[in-house]
Amino acid sequence: MSKKVYYFGQLGTEGSGKMKNELGGKGANLAEMTAIGIPVPPGFTICADICQVYYDEGKKIPAWLSSQIDEAVAKIEKELGLKFGDESNPLLVSVRSGARVSMPGMMNTILNLGLTDKAVEGLARKTNNERMAYDSYRRFIEMFGDVVKGVHGEKFEHQLTAAKEAAGVELDTDLTAEQLKELCAKYKQVYKAALGEDFPQNPREQLYASIAAVFNSWNTERAILYRKMESIPDAWGTAVNVQAMVFGNKGNTSATGVAFTRDPSSGENLYYGEYLVNAQGEDVVAGVRTPIGIRKEAAAEKGFAGQSLEEVMPSAYKELTAVFNKLERHYKDMQDIEFTIDEGKLFILQTRNGKRTGFAEVAIAVDMVEEGLIDKKVAVSRIKPDSLVQLLSPIFNLADKKAAKASLVGKGLNAGPGAATGALVLSSHKALEYKANKLRCVLVRADTSPEDFPGMMAAEGVLTARGGATSHAAVVARQFGKPCVCGLGTLRINEAEGVLYCGDKMIKEGDPISIDGSTGEVFFSSIKTSPSEVNQVIVDRSLKAEDSKVYSNFKKVMGWADEIKKLEVRTNADSPRDVQIAIDFGAVGIGLTRIEHMINGTERLLPLRKLVLSSVEDVKKKALEEIKNFLAKDFKGIFQALKGLPATIRLLDPPLHEFMPHTDEEIQVLVKALGVTTEEIKHALDGMHEHNPMLGFRGCRLGVVNSDITAMQVRAILESALAVQAEGTAVKPEIMVPIVMNERELEHQKVLIDKTAQEVFAAKGAKIEYTVGTMIELPRAALRAKQIAEHAEFFSFGTNDLTQTTFGISRDDAGKFLPPYVEGVKNPYANATKAFEVYPNDPFQVLDQEGVGELMKIAVERGRACKPKLKIGLCGEHGGEPSSVEFCHRIGLNYVSCSPYRVPVARLAAAQAALKD
Amino acid sequence: MSKKVYYFGQLGTEGSGKMKNELGGKGANLAEMTAIGIPVPPGFTICADICQVYYDEGKKIPAWLSSQIDEAVAKIEKELGLKFGDESNPLLVSVRSGARVSMPGMMNTILNLGLTDKAVEGLARKTNNERMAYDSYRRFIEMFGDVVKGVHGEKFEHQLTAAKEAAGVELDTDLTAEQLKELCAKYKQVYKAALGEDFPQNPREQLYASIAAVFNSWNTERAILYRKMESIPDAWGTAVNVQAMVFGNKGNTSATGVAFTRDPSSGENLYYGEYLVNAQGEDVVAGVRTPIGIRKEAAAEKGFAGQSLEEVMPSAYKELTAVFNKLERHYKDMQDIEFTIDEGKLFILQTRNGKRTGFAEVAIAVDMVEEGLIDKKVAVSRIKPDSLVQLLSPIFNLADKKAAKASLVGKGLNAGPGAATGALVLSSHKALEYKANKLRCVLVRADTSPEDFPGMMAAEGVLTARGGATSHAAVVARQFGKPCVCGLGTLRINEAEGVLYCGDKMIKEGDPISIDGSTGEVFFSSIKTSPSEVNQVIVDRSLKAEDSKVYSNFKKVMGWADEIKKLEVRTNADSPRDVQIAIDFGAVGIGLTRIEHMINGTERLLPLRKLVLSSVEDVKKKALEEIKNFLAKDFKGIFQALKGLPATIRLLDPPLHEFMPHTDEEIQVLVKALGVTTEEIKHALDGMHEHNPMLGFRGCRLGVVNSDITAMQVRAILESALAVQAEGTAVKPEIMVPIVMNERELEHQKVLIDKTAQEVFAAKGAKIEYTVGTMIELPRAALRAKQIAEHAEFFSFGTNDLTQTTFGISRDDAGKFLPPYVEGVKNPYANATKAFEVYPNDPFQVLDQEGVGELMKIAVERGRACKPKLKIGLCGEHGGEPSSVEFCHRIGLNYVSCSPYRVPVARLAAAQAALKD
Repeated sequence: MSKKVYYFGQLGTEGSGKMKNELGGKGANLAEMTAIGIPVPPGFTICADICQVYYDEGKKIPAWLSSQIDEAVAKIEKELGLKFGDESNPLLVSVRSGARVSMPGMMNTILNLGLTDKAVEGLARKTNNERMAYDSYRRFIEMFGDVVKGVHGEKFEHQLTAAKEAAGVELDTDLTAEQLKELCAKYKQVYKAALGEDFPQNPREQLYASIAAVFNSWNTERAILYRKMESIPDAWGTAVNVQAMVFGNKGNTSATGVAFTRDPSSGENLYYGEYLVNAQGEDVVAGVRTPIGIRKEAAAEKGFAGQSLEEVMPSAYKELTAVFNKLERHYKDMQDIEFTIDEGKLFILQTRNGKRTGFAEVAIAVDMVEEGLIDKKVAVSRIKPDSLVQLLSPIFNLADKKAAKASLVGKGLNAGPGAATGALVLSSHKALEYKANKLRCVLVRADTSPEDFPGMMAAEGVLTARGGATSHAAVVARQFGKPCVCGLGTLRINEAEGVLYCGDKMIKEGDPISIDGSTGEVFFSSIKTSPSEVNQVIVDRSLKAEDSKVYSNFKKVMGWADEIKKLEVRTNADSPRDVQIAIDFGAVGIGLTRIEHMINGTERLLPLRKLVLSSVEDVKKKALEEIKNFLAKDFKGIFQALKGLPATIRLLDPPLHEFMPHTDEEIQVLVKALGVTTEEIKHALDGMHEHNPMLGFRGCRLGVVNSDITAMQVRAILESALAVQAEGTAVKPEIMVPIVMNERELEHQKVLIDKTAQEVFAAKGAKIEYTVGTMIELPRAALRAKQIAEHAEFFSFGTNDLTQTTFGISRDDAGKFLPPYVEGVKNPYANATKAFEVYPNDPFQVLDQEGVGELMKIAVERGRACKPKLKIGLCGEHGGEPSSVEFCHRIGLNYVSCSPYRVPVARLAAAQAALKD
Repeated sequence: MSKKVYYFGQLGTEGSGKMKNELGGKGANLAEMTAIGIPVPPGFTICADICQVYYDEGKKIPAWLSSQIDEAVAKIEKELGLKFGDESNPLLVSVRSGARVSMPGMMNTILNLGLTDKAVEGLARKTNNERMAYDSYRRFIEMFGDVVKGVHGEKFEHQLTAAKEAAGVELDTDLTAEQLKELCAKYKQVYKAALGEDFPQNPREQLYASIAAVFNSWNTERAILYRKMESIPDAWGTAVNVQAMVFGNKGNTSATGVAFTRDPSSGENLYYGEYLVNAQGEDVVAGVRTPIGIRKEAAAEKGFAGQSLEEVMPSAYKELTAVFNKLERHYKDMQDIEFTIDEGKLFILQTRNGKRTGFAEVAIAVDMVEEGLIDKKVAVSRIKPDSLVQLLSPIFNLADKKAAKASLVGKGLNAGPGAATGALVLSSHKALEYKANKLRCVLVRADTSPEDFPGMMAAEGVLTARGGATSHAAVVARQFGKPCVCGLGTLRINEAEGVLYCGDKMIKEGDPISIDGSTGEVFFSSIKTSPSEVNQVIVDRSLKAEDSKVYSNFKKVMGWADEIKKLEVRTNADSPRDVQIAIDFGAVGIGLTRIEHMINGTERLLPLRKLVLSSVEDVKKKALEEIKNFLAKDFKGIFQALKGLPATIRLLDPPLHEFMPHTDEEIQVLVKALGVTTEEIKHALDGMHEHNPMLGFRGCRLGVVNSDITAMQVRAILESALAVQAEGTAVKPEIMVPIVMNERELEHQKVLIDKTAQEVFAAKGAKIEYTVGTMIELPRAALRAKQIAEHAEFFSFGTNDLTQTTFGISRDDAGKFLPPYVEGVKNPYANATKAFEVYPNDPFQVLDQEGVGELMKIAVERGRACKPKLKIGLCGEHGGEPSSVEFCHRIGLNYVSCSPYRVPVARLAAAQAALKD
């Protein structure tokens, strides 16, 4: 019979870390640690494929395997000088499951196996702790009875309750050794009454029954369901790990603790951990006693001078730090370790890569590269893109946030990361007032429109009652690194009275409010925030680069990412300031400038309103000229800031009614300006109403039906480009036509743009290179990409709109069904235990590779079938989302474009995508 | 040298109708007619490929061809006993172009060629009409000078003007023979002055120059542009037709006319035509003299007793009718003929298939089958589906409509065919008042919603200011065969004052208004209408089938179509009455029942409003029960009407806010019913607002998030199905889930439906067969059809929504850009002569085969990759549009479903699609 039991320990470890398929994850890890000389309590692993054999044999452990098991037990006994059931030196073991992939909580564990009436006395003597010994025995009888033999746990619990009542105590821990001894007797009676047989006094019998119980637990209903959900094959089976027990609670030479090889919060290369003398693992976690730092300095800082492990057990500490170093060198990552010191002897029970903050993640990766432990590629591949977001977001002071817990009123969509606090304002102009008075405020609106833009910029953060993660509020907020929470449906705003309700809580304008855009939490109180160090260096320029370790780590990682990535990263930016920030964050050009973002504020809206609502040719002409002029001014600033980098400028995209007046006051301004009646204006505005503006008169449809609108924009772009070129700065304008559904639309616009360009060049007596391309943001455009490419010099995927149309979901209206789809709805299956998950995530955040992605692949293929070198990018919100960036890399895009603050995330994700190739 | 000149005439016709590629369309037709013995003036055709030779030789007619041409001229002279340039019997010919496909007006024609100073005298003598001879000569000199030699036509016109001034007359026709003779001399002077040579007195020279001119006209700028647009290869070239001239104006034994072999209006098998004695072709058309019927009876009816051709020239008439019969038997279709009688001799100048009304088209096809002239397949293939629509639509009395021309105020979208006239009403309740008083009215609204449904039904027709051909108004109107004009943007409605403006015209409620839903015209006046005979038989049942020839023809054609077609035709119907009409129109089941169409009127809306707006569990439960009950009642009627035919019932599709109250009055009803405050209701309604309801919380999203809504509908369907089954009528319900975007949504609904069904069956103690399927109406659903098919027993394409999402166009908002897209926008090309057509037609009317169609093909392939026999249909508006039906046939659908009144059109289109295979 082949070898199916693998011993690990000082007598020659037989398995290794590479044998995960055979030994399961836990078994392989125990073998690995033992093999590299880490002091792990010895034990053995029964291979996972035996699980199937066990079932094939009619739930029996085959005889040929028994000899391998017995042999392995003997090895443990020999190594430790202990014996199963021995009166003075009893061997106790744990029996645990361990599948190829982790199935947390799904299968059985038995501890303290080996205790018998005799062995318990041996344990008591050895530990000099009779109470602990009998408490262990009591627990073992219950666990074995329940888990292995199926005796209902309640039956034991009734006895425990009776014993406590008899003793007049409330807690288990208040029972004396004598009382526990009696309880053990009672437990054995319960066992016998339930099963008609005595509690087994033979540890081997206990062991074999427990191994069988682990195999049985592979096929419990919940384990089967879990495997089905996680697509784990039934045939894999679970391995069984049998390992000698060690005890941190055998007196003052024993201890137990958890430790990190580096500081998981800051990433500093300092040992970090906590321990307790004479305690068990769970005591450290349970918080009954306060654990003490293992390192002298750290313990002293917290007021435990002289009590650190370093001081109390210097030799064990030294041994432990040696283990730290060894494990880090072996696993090449920061480790999270559980250890026990059993009568002065150190044992490592578990090691795994330690969880850490984003700051620590970056710092550790950088340090490890500099220590030569890992190379740059590994460092880059290890940093989660979200960790970068942490590095860039303003944050609440954690203690302050905890203290404010009572004022938490709800949780909306975490639409723009970062924390904001200030006085409540309910209108844009109020926000501007606060800003003017140098007061911080948070703008709260039902939802936002371009009119609210100045107010959003003036506020510290934005909160809305309606709209999803890609609503106007959210898009603008992320664009400007503004904390934002969206779609908190329980909000009720009474702007007239200046009051905000959330459920039964109410505050007035001016009262403090705080929002956490990273979690979606909203507080009716003030909580302290600070901006990130990286932003202090790059955006605020209030901190010098050389003074910030965080920034310097960030910069190093970004540099490595750039060396690796193939995809370029551009930015979505509409102002010189944005462009500068994006370049400082590493963007190599603009992937999307939205002209509509330049038409903000009453002064700029007025000429557009005149253009649309006047019927006098002269007024229209003058309005066009005015718009052209302020656009040209903005473009000029952008081209100057770009210093020769390319800029993709999208022609006006939203339906024009979005720019029209809403209030009577604004209408009156037009009535006067145009010399028409209020009724005429209102009638015209009524006529502009759209049922579904997302699918309405927008994008290139505007410029195809009304050539003047396109020509005016082209003039603004090229006249400003010529002006900046004349200053000696290179300019690379790329004019992008939105919402194209067929090739004729693009042909029309391309011909018109080229004709207008010739006119501008002739008028100015100078020329400039420019290109014309299109957004691919409608399913039909993707399907007709070959024909469309005839007229395009580049494509850019507008995945926001492409997602909306492919799914038939308006992102602004998805709040009612998309969150329940993702979180799970009422499950229609009989006896279902979980909610029914309809869709795995928000497709406006994470690109849908199956649907939208297929259309993108089609468009890339067909576009390049027409023009093999067609430049193709993506400029939707997905350009800053890591899995979406990876997809873009995979289908061969040239670049992604995202908001300035997401550029670092996209650069990192692009590098990680390249590493996966 | 090969034969390149083909003579046709009595001396042995050399070409045939099959030689279109060589001889061009006109040449082949002339040869064909001559060959079968039709009296055609003789002539010859020069092959089209000579055109290229002509250019290759440097614009010269090769010498080897001249001999063939001269030979052919000699044959004409011989046949007619005439001679080129002869003083007594001159031969005159026409020279015309004639390409492989018709290029109307693109190329040159020269008439009366052969006239010289001598020949004109011969002609004068022969015709005894000097004036006519010199007028012909004058025209020929100008035509030859202008067309062949490039002398600017104005130069001749100046002379004409001067001559008229000198003679003191206003019209050309007032010039005398003598004055014309002088004018000819002036024209020849002009010719000489311009070209430095005399006007050629050699007819052969005239002929060769004219042939060259025809070849030259192949490459004029406009001809090249036309070929480019119509994708006609330049290499095809044009043929040249030279044909002897004949004259209907040589005196009282000459005549000219046009005729149809059957009545083009009714289709009756009676000769039909008009003629004039001593006249030219253009005189018949020009209306200077009133043409007279050729048939005795017909002429007498119009007050021309004794003047018909039959009476005036009985032998020519007899000859003509023989030609009619021969041509019909040859071409196997009704012919439209031009004839000339030249001194008692009949000549046919042209024949082609005659245009006819829809009524005639059907009648002629049926008659010809019964006459054995064509078979059923040919008959079916010949009837245009739109002709059937004509048979089914109420129509204006044509004379009345002409008379009402002055009251035409505008043209909207022809959204529901048919004509309607009545009093203007501006609200649904007003329409109901009129109906109650048995008065006819036309409902005019900005747009319509389900609230307006009763009013739409009460009105004769519906007119809206907003919305496209598939807006609520249009869909409902077509569904119920109601005339409808949509999206007439110039309308301004003031409901409060009861006035309607259109431009500067104004009418009040109660004033007459008429709409033509077949043309989109709107009149502010009353115009008489009558319902179609077919509808009188099938819908109104006011006419017996046996009393209507129109109906009997219709029925025969439909029967033949059914024998041929493979695609089944179902109907979109929501009431027993609709079902009955659709069955009578030949539907074999329901393809779409829309539950939302059953929730009309205040009484039925109330429980739904309670369900949505109440938060009291009991109120909601009761409301659900109420809705279930009225739905079940409706379903029962439908199942009974179906008599065992299948019914696809779609679960509730629109967003629920569409059913919510709009007016304060309606809100107050709810305030009382639910015991809540007005503010609470308004807040709830605000919360339901959607930016883009088309992409919002609708379709299966409603039933996935709120299982109760789906379960209630399933109960209504299956309980009513069981009840009808218990009556002994078979019932085949097919439950259809709308707006599915991924497989999990459908899985959820399928499991829920099956569970609910088991509950219903258990409760009722009876079972019934049913199936569950889904709409494919989102691009993502098409792409994921394989996965979706796992949970579907059938698919049905919702091409309305699929078109909206694939194009990114809301059909309700397309009015601002789709019409200009189709009609053409401002052309950006330099020197463009036509508007720039962006898209060929309204994709909501004609299925977009390139985009939407590709997604459909993908869905069919992938769906059947999962389930090879998956039943797939279409239930969008396209189900009644012929080219769309053909596409459905081609991609292998099982059925199409359309509104009851379109069922005949779909049946015919399906048969025609099958014939094309």
